[in-house]
Amino acid sequence: FLDDGGSNGGAYQYSLRHSQPEPPVLASIREAALVRDPVEAQKMISPLQGAFMRHLVRSQRPQTVLELGCYVGYSALWLAHGLQSLPGLSPPKLWTCERDSGIANLAKDNIKAAGLADTVHVLNASAKHVLEEWDSQQKLDLVFVDANKSACQLYYDLIMDRDLLSDHGQIIVDNVLFHGQVHPLIGDSGVSSAGPGSNIAHKMHRFNEHVAIDQRTDQVLLPMFDGLLLIQRVK
Amino acid sequence: FLDDGGSNGGAYQYSLRHSQPEPPVLASIREAALVRDPVEAQKMISPLQGAFMRHLVRSQRPQTVLELGCYVGYSALWLAHGLQSLPGLSPPKLWTCERDSGIANLAKDNIKAAGLADTVHVLNASAKHVLEEWDSQQKLDLVFVDANKSACQLYYDLIMDRDLLSDHGQIIVDNVLFHGQVHPLIGDSGVSSAGPGSNIAHKMHRFNEHVAIDQRTDQVLLPMFDGLLLIQRVK
Ligand SMILES: C[S@@+](CC[C@H](N)C(=O)[O-])C[C@H]1O[C@@H](n2cnc3c(N)ncnc32)[C@H](O)[C@@H]1O
Ligand SMILES: C[S@@+](CC[C@H](N)C(=O)[O-])C[C@H]1O[C@@H](n2cnc3c(N)ncnc32)[C@H](O)[C@@H]1O
Repeated sequence: FLDDGGSNGGAYQYSLRHSQPEPPVLASIREAALVRDPVEAQKMISPLQGAFMRHLVRSQRPQTVLELGCYVGYSALWLAHGLQSLPGLSPPKLWTCERDSGIANLAKDNIKAAGLADTVHVLNASAKHVLEEWDSQQKLDLVFVDANKSACQLYYDLIMDRDLLSDHGQIIVDNVLFHGQVHPLIGDSGVSSAGPGSNIAHKMHRFNEHVAIDQRTDQVLLPMFDGLLLIQRVK
Repeated sequence: FLDDGGSNGGAYQYSLRHSQPEPPVLASIREAALVRDPVEAQKMISPLQGAFMRHLVRSQRPQTVLELGCYVGYSALWLAHGLQSLPGLSPPKLWTCERDSGIANLAKDNIKAAGLADTVHVLNASAKHVLEEWDSQQKLDLVFVDANKSACQLYYDLIMDRDLLSDHGQIIVDNVLFHGQVHPLIGDSGVSSAGPGSNIAHKMHRFNEHVAIDQRTDQVLLPMFDGLLLIQRVK
């Protein structure tokens, strides 16, 4: 019934207009990123996806959040806005990592400007390194996976093999339908074809199959934005 | 990037195939409903929407859930599957209401057959009546609104005016983009036009505007399925 769900579609625009508006500080960070580097800045989540993830955070009330792939801090700030409104004895914390040190510094500045430096901690490190070194006693309630698009399976396996997820924790993986190139990789029979599609699309498809088969987790793939995979531990 | 997101689209089918499979008891209830009344049964949520709502329940861990519009119990059973896996001192409860007494009895049979009669309680009553009579001391953590499509605003106002929602509660309203007829009602200027679109589409649009303006709540409209509006109290 709906149109393409892409950010130019009428349904997307209508939905954005009838969702809680983007906080002004986030709008200016997003706009500055688009001016600074119009191509790279396309990698940020959309404002509607931000509002959705903030909703998920408010509803779940996580205590410990990890983001893989910070860029200039835009998605981290949406998550942090959700954390801010939560009650609790100890304030919730969000760690986010960015491999590029110049970008990581930009993110730190943005987070300070947004007044959320007490909640959000930027690590200038690779996602793999952070997951390998994360203290497995400090369970993660929410992990947002948005770093190296070829490495989703590596990140997922590190989280599950090292048992980093809390009992009611969730992993959210972005871009699992990568630019609409993933779902055409299976025919009506459900059998993977070796058809066209970028290298990343093929890797994402293998990752989606990997999670679907893994008995340790339940998951739902949302055909929205660029494809969002929501993963939970099986009880 | 994605196709229409409707249940025939390739992205929808791919997403369904890579999400946790529908439990067999739910598949047989859905299939029996489609045989019994192929037209009415279209009103049920899709299996993918069911898996999404179960994910939301597991993540939120609500104690008290109310569904408006039960039909044969399909969506109620998805929600109940999410509630089942939750820890806690007192078992979570789901109330669902259905105006039609024949259908309500069918739902009761289905819920018994699924082994969830201790969790799900079917009320043979109108949604308006249930909301008017609901004990405002027993706060609702989750309300799924899927009854009379012309009455969403009435339901929403009853919930908010009677203060029935718990602090971290959420309301999920289905079909707010009603068959793709709602978003064309506004032009690029954002001004409502008196253009085509069913009576229900116009009412849904007015409802979406009503919620967007209401200072008591935050909301995000998801351009997925038939349009899902996720609403939370402002802290
Ligand atoms: C898709 S962008 C993140 C966008 C951000 N989450 C947002 O929505 O605002 C991916 C970021 O991850 C960084 N990155 C790529 N590979 C990485 C890795 N292996 N470890 C850490 N960061 C990485 C890139 O430099 C880029 O800034
Ligand atoms: C969209 S269907 C519900 C489908 C169900 N939630 C599912 O996804 O499996 C709407 C149901 O609400 C019932 N209904 C309509 N108006 C109602 C009202 N005012 N109060 C209670 N039930 C109502 C209809 O009889 C119908 O069975």
